[in-house]
Amino acid sequence: MNPKVIAFDADDTLWHNEPYFDEAQAKFCALFENYASHQEILSLILNHQIKNLPVYGFGIKAFTLSMIESALALTNQQISGSAIEKVLQIGKELLEKPVELLPEVENVLEQLKNRYKLIVATKGDLKDQHRKLHDSGLGHYFHHIEVMSDKTDLDYQKMLGRLDIQPQDFMMIGNSLKSDVLPVLNIGGFGVHIPYHTTWEYEKIDFEVQHNNFKAIENITEVLSLV
Amino acid sequence: MNPKVIAFDADDTLWHNEPYFDEAQAKFCALFENYASHQEILSLILNHQIKNLPVYGFGIKAFTLSMIESALALTNQQISGSAIEKVLQIGKELLEKPVELLPEVENVLEQLKNRYKLIVATKGDLKDQHRKLHDSGLGHYFHHIEVMSDKTDLDYQKMLGRLDIQPQDFMMIGNSLKSDVLPVLNIGGFGVHIPYHTTWEYEKIDFEVQHNNFKAIENITEVLSLV
Repeated sequence: MNPKVIAFDADDTLWHNEPYFDEAQAKFCALFENYASHQEILSLILNHQIKNLPVYGFGIKAFTLSMIESALALTNQQISGSAIEKVLQIGKELLEKPVELLPEVENVLEQLKNRYKLIVATKGDLKDQHRKLHDSGLGHYFHHIEVMSDKTDLDYQKMLGRLDIQPQDFMMIGNSLKSDVLPVLNIGGFGVHIPYHTTWEYEKIDFEVQHNNFKAIENITEVLSLV
Repeated sequence: MNPKVIAFDADDTLWHNEPYFDEAQAKFCALFENYASHQEILSLILNHQIKNLPVYGFGIKAFTLSMIESALALTNQQISGSAIEKVLQIGKELLEKPVELLPEVENVLEQLKNRYKLIVATKGDLKDQHRKLHDSGLGHYFHHIEVMSDKTDLDYQKMLGRLDIQPQDFMMIGNSLKSDVLPVLNIGGFGVHIPYHTTWEYEKIDFEVQHNNFKAIENITEVLSLV
């Protein structure tokens, strides 16, 4: 693989993220455990998130609004103001979580930075992703930060067009086959998958990826031997 | 003024926006008119918005979450689920409003497009601003769309750095002196103010702007005689 530009997903690729969402959802389930099982509540939140994607997009504010909708549905609108307040609080806590880098991330960026143009390509709340990048201390490694409203083929194409990058010079590294790998393979780039130990239900796919431009690795240091 | 790159704010510069927020707030006030006067309720929402800016940032989802907080405060948490549902609905309606261009916008862009690099520089929800730009039909005029998490001097500096634009080649046009003009003058660019008939309280400033690189105009067609 011989890219000129290497893009990294952020959440669960550069730093831990999904466990914070799991923790937030566990708190939500505990609040409403008299109404349904944890599993039922998790499905309900996911359904609301997916239904709301076209209007709310990704990120913590969208997640918070979907939790509130789920709470209304769960309680047949018989919810107390103080419970709503607690749900808002769960969302705010997520927006203030510390940024914990994954192992070896900084080491790998340090070794790549002079040989490649490095960028971050992430979904989520604009403000929140900028905050996390700032708090991560990694900002200076990256030539460009792209917070994307989605990660479809077209979204990647538009980004590459704007940044004047040829697809065959572009490698994307991330923990989601669906968002970080498949669309990039589709448009002619390189896709590298590094699984994180837990994956958001929405990002799961039920088939194997086989492609000349695809590589699955176990941890981020293996990137160094790919390029 | 001799810029090479002309940036436009979006909301209330390219298309109508603030009246939709005013309408949304009027609906919110009507829902809670037994609790406080319209003026008191508007102040309360504004206070929650400003308090929440560091975590939520700008945009409709942030506004919706601040309305919910305001509703909890107004009712001393004695709010019904159905009222919360209605507040969520006010937010969703905002996210689905049609995009109505301001007069002469397209004509002006058409005349500028071959002579200058045109960009959009806007705050707000990432997803929502992309949706509006798409629905506006104006996308093809712009070399770059920048949704900014804030519009401080530093935010503009970072954007110009990334896009490789010198401040003295940069002109920003918008309806907010605070966000579109002052920071751009501070970093050495040109600032052009086109007032919109109504301005969000947060964007108001209480002094006059006087600067060699500053121009106040009445409508967007006057841009053509400035450059």
